[in-house]
Amino acid sequence: MAETEPRADTVTMDKIVSLARRRGFVFPSSEIYGGLGSTYDYGHYGVLAKNNVKARWLEAMVQERDDIVALDSAIILNPSVWEASGHVAGFTDPLVDCRTCKLRFRADKLEDSQCGRKPSKHPGETPDCDLTEPRQFNLMLSTRLGAVEETGAPAYLRPETAQGIFVNFKNVLQLARRKPPFGIAQIGKSFRNEITPGNFLFRTREFEQMEMEYFVPPDEADRWYEYWVDERYGWYTRYGLRESHLRVRPHEQDELSHYSSATSDIEYLFPIGWSELEGIANRGAFDLTQHTEHSGTKLEFVDSATGERYVPHVIEPAGGADRALLAFLVDAYDEEEVAGRERTVLRLHPQIAPVKAAVLPLIAKDEGMVAKARSLYEELRRRHIVEYDDNGAIGRRYRRQDEIGTPFAFTIDEQTLADDTVTVRDRDSLAQERLPIGGVREWLDDALERPWQTPKSG
Amino acid sequence: MAETEPRADTVTMDKIVSLARRRGFVFPSSEIYGGLGSTYDYGHYGVLAKNNVKARWLEAMVQERDDIVALDSAIILNPSVWEASGHVAGFTDPLVDCRTCKLRFRADKLEDSQCGRKPSKHPGETPDCDLTEPRQFNLMLSTRLGAVEETGAPAYLRPETAQGIFVNFKNVLQLARRKPPFGIAQIGKSFRNEITPGNFLFRTREFEQMEMEYFVPPDEADRWYEYWVDERYGWYTRYGLRESHLRVRPHEQDELSHYSSATSDIEYLFPIGWSELEGIANRGAFDLTQHTEHSGTKLEFVDSATGERYVPHVIEPAGGADRALLAFLVDAYDEEEVAGRERTVLRLHPQIAPVKAAVLPLIAKDEGMVAKARSLYEELRRRHIVEYDDNGAIGRRYRRQDEIGTPFAFTIDEQTLADDTVTVRDRDSLAQERLPIGGVREWLDDALERPWQTPKSG
Repeated sequence: MAETEPRADTVTMDKIVSLARRRGFVFPSSEIYGGLGSTYDYGHYGVLAKNNVKARWLEAMVQERDDIVALDSAIILNPSVWEASGHVAGFTDPLVDCRTCKLRFRADKLEDSQCGRKPSKHPGETPDCDLTEPRQFNLMLSTRLGAVEETGAPAYLRPETAQGIFVNFKNVLQLARRKPPFGIAQIGKSFRNEITPGNFLFRTREFEQMEMEYFVPPDEADRWYEYWVDERYGWYTRYGLRESHLRVRPHEQDELSHYSSATSDIEYLFPIGWSELEGIANRGAFDLTQHTEHSGTKLEFVDSATGERYVPHVIEPAGGADRALLAFLVDAYDEEEVAGRERTVLRLHPQIAPVKAAVLPLIAKDEGMVAKARSLYEELRRRHIVEYDDNGAIGRRYRRQDEIGTPFAFTIDEQTLADDTVTVRDRDSLAQERLPIGGVREWLDDALERPWQTPKSG
Repeated sequence: MAETEPRADTVTMDKIVSLARRRGFVFPSSEIYGGLGSTYDYGHYGVLAKNNVKARWLEAMVQERDDIVALDSAIILNPSVWEASGHVAGFTDPLVDCRTCKLRFRADKLEDSQCGRKPSKHPGETPDCDLTEPRQFNLMLSTRLGAVEETGAPAYLRPETAQGIFVNFKNVLQLARRKPPFGIAQIGKSFRNEITPGNFLFRTREFEQMEMEYFVPPDEADRWYEYWVDERYGWYTRYGLRESHLRVRPHEQDELSHYSSATSDIEYLFPIGWSELEGIANRGAFDLTQHTEHSGTKLEFVDSATGERYVPHVIEPAGGADRALLAFLVDAYDEEEVAGRERTVLRLHPQIAPVKAAVLPLIAKDEGMVAKARSLYEELRRRHIVEYDDNGAIGRRYRRQDEIGTPFAFTIDEQTLADDTVTVRDRDSLAQERLPIGGVREWLDDALERPWQTPKSG
C-alpha cells in the first residue's frame, strides 16, 4: 500500500465484498460460528472463477511453452527445508504488545492497526498506549506429525510454494531432461500467521500461490529478469486488467531481500491504493546454494557436452491466485444506467468469467421454448460452464447474469419457434443479434477464443 | 484391505512407484533431506494427470448437472466446527506403546505394523513386545493462529472437506436458490495424522479429497443413496477402470458410523488387495442437526410454497483424488512384447492421460520436417497439452510416450514433405494411419471426445 491515490471510478472494497457475498462468489468462513478472522470460503462462482485464473496461469506457464514443467509439492515438507531456506531463523515480523489494552501489533506497521486508539511509535501522541520493545515473531504455522506429539519436533505449513520447487530441482533436471534456462511452476496453498490480515482476499492467513522458479545461466539472469517482468505484466493485461490500473515498481535498494539483486512488484490500483499483485525477483544462486549446503546434495547444472558446471541463478515470478481474482473482480466492476435503470456488471474477460453463457427461455412455461432451450443448454454444457435460467422476468435474469459476469446470453423466444434462431445478448455492449440455433455452439466456441478488448473506460 | 486376492496381471505397487518416479509423475517429498514418511510431491505428469482426475470429477458433479454447486472452503475453519462435528471428541485411533522398542502402534491394526518383531495382541507369541493398554489419539493436526501462540486455543487442519460444506449449507440454500434435492461439491486437501500411512499414494497424511454432500427430503434418502452408489461406480468405469477390478461392498452393521444408516465402499483391486476407493454414506440428518445445536443457526429447509419444513438428509459420496489417480495408473499399467521387444504402456483414458498427443519429426535435423512439426505442435497446443519430441530414435520416443500414457503420436516424415500427410500412431493398438496435416487438429479434438473402450484384458 504505497499510496492511497483514489481510483477514478466508483468501485470500493465494500461493494466488491457485498457483491461477492450476495452472488455467492465468496463467503466469510465458518460464518455460523462467528467466522474466523480474515478467512473466506469460495462459493460456486468463486470456485469457477478462481479455477479459471489458475488454469490461465498454467496455460501461459506450461501449456504454451516448451521450457517450464509443472510441480505440486506437499504443504508439509521435511522441516529441514525451512532451516535451509532461512525461514525458521528469519521469517519473522517484529511485534509489540500494548500493556494497556493487551493487544499486539506489528512494530513496523502501527498505523495499520485496527485498535481504535491507534498505537504510535511516539508514545506522547497516544498517551493510553504503553508499548513493549519489539520481539521477533515467526510467521510460519507449525504442527506436529506422528504419534509422539509431546516430544516430536515441529513441522511447518509451508509459507511459500517456492521451496518445494528448489528441493525438487535435481529431480526435474534429471528426469525431464532439462538444461537452463528452464522453469518449474507450482500452484498451491500457503499459510502465514499474519498479525494484520485484512482487506478481504488481499491478505489472508491461508492463500493460494502461483509461483514459478526459472533457472538460468548466471550471466543471463538480468535479461531473464526483465523478460519475466514484461511477461507477467502482459498476462494481467491479456486477461483484462487496465494498463491505467497497473504499474511496475522496482524495489529500492533498502527493500531488497539480502539475497536478491533486483525485485519488481507488479502493482494494481486496488480501492485501498496501489498494492502488490505479484513480485518478480532475481534470487541469484541463493536458494540452490543454501539447499546444497544443508542437504549435502549438489544442486548445480553440469553440461554433459562441454563439462561446464554452474549453480543456476533463479528468476521468480510469484503471484497470488486469490489476489489476482480480487484484482480481476475490482477491475471488472461497473455500475451504469441503462434505459433509466441502474445495473451492476462484472466486465470479466470471458476466459475468467465463471459462467460462459446463459440459456434463457423467454416464457418459462412455454413447452416449445423450454424444449429448445433445454436442448441448446445440454449441447453447450458439454464443453462449457453454462447456466439455464427460467426464473423470473427476463430483465431480472439478465441483471443476475450481468452481476456474475456472464459474457453471453442466448434467449429462446416466439421467433425461435418459427425460424430456429435465438438472440444473443452481449453483456458489455448490450447489443443483441439473432443466430441460427444450430450454429450457437460454434459461435460460442469462437467467441470464447477471440482476443478480447477491454470495453472499460480509463 | 479386505482380502489379498492376487490380480491376474503382473502389476505390482513397486512397478507403479518405480514408473511414477522414473517418468516424473510422483517423487518422494523432500528427498534431498531424507524424505518425510509417506509424503509425496507430484511431478509434471502427475500434476497434469491429477488435474484431469479432478476436472473430470467436477465436470460430472457440477458442469453436467443442474443440481450441484461448487464450494472451496478454508482448510483452517473455526475450531467450533470440529467440536460440533464430533471430531475433537471422537476422531481418534486407539494406540499402544511398546515398552521394549519404544514404538507406537494402532491397537486395532497390530498386524500392519512396520516393526520387524510384529507386535501382537497375544504377548505370548512375541515375547519381546511389552505393550501398554490402548490410548485414544486424535488424528487431527493442530496449529495455533494469531500472535498469542502461548495461550491461544488450537485450530485444526481439516481432516475432511465435508464439514466446510455443512457450515455453508444455509449460504447455498439462500443464495443459489436451491431446494432439495441439491448438492454441494468440494475438492481440496485434508490432513490426518495417520499412525500407519503407506502403500504409496493410497494412505498419506496430506491428501486431496473430492466430496459431495447431497441434501434430500428424508423420505427420498434411500433412493438417492442407491443412485449415488451407481453414479459413482459408473464414473470410475467411464474413465477406464475395469469392472473386474471394481466392486461395491456394503458395510456390515458393526462397521457403520453411529449416524449412518447405510454406507457402501467402492473398492478397487489394488496390488495390495481390494481396498476402498470411495465411500458413499447415508448420513441422515446428523450433520445439520449437530451444527444447528452448536451454532444456534437453524439448518433446515422451509418450502416457501407449502410451509413444509424439514432437516434434509445427506448422501455423501467421498472419494480421494490421489487414490483415484493411483487406481487409474494401476489399471492402465501393462507390459507386453511387441516385435520381440518389451514395452511398458499406460493405457490411460485419453481424458485422464497427462499428455494428449506427441508431435515427432522423424529426423530431428531435417529443417523441412522440423518446420512442419513445430507448426503442427503450435496449433495443437493451443487447446491441449501436447509434447514436441525430437530426442533420440523414433522407437525410443514412442516408448517414452507409451510409458506416460500419451494416446496419440503424430509423426512427420519424408512423405509429409511430399504430400502434407502425417502418420498417427495409436498407443493401444499400435495401428498407424495417415492423415492430412491440416485435419489433425479436428481429428484430435474428435478423438479426445469419443467414448473410449478399454482395450484391456480381464
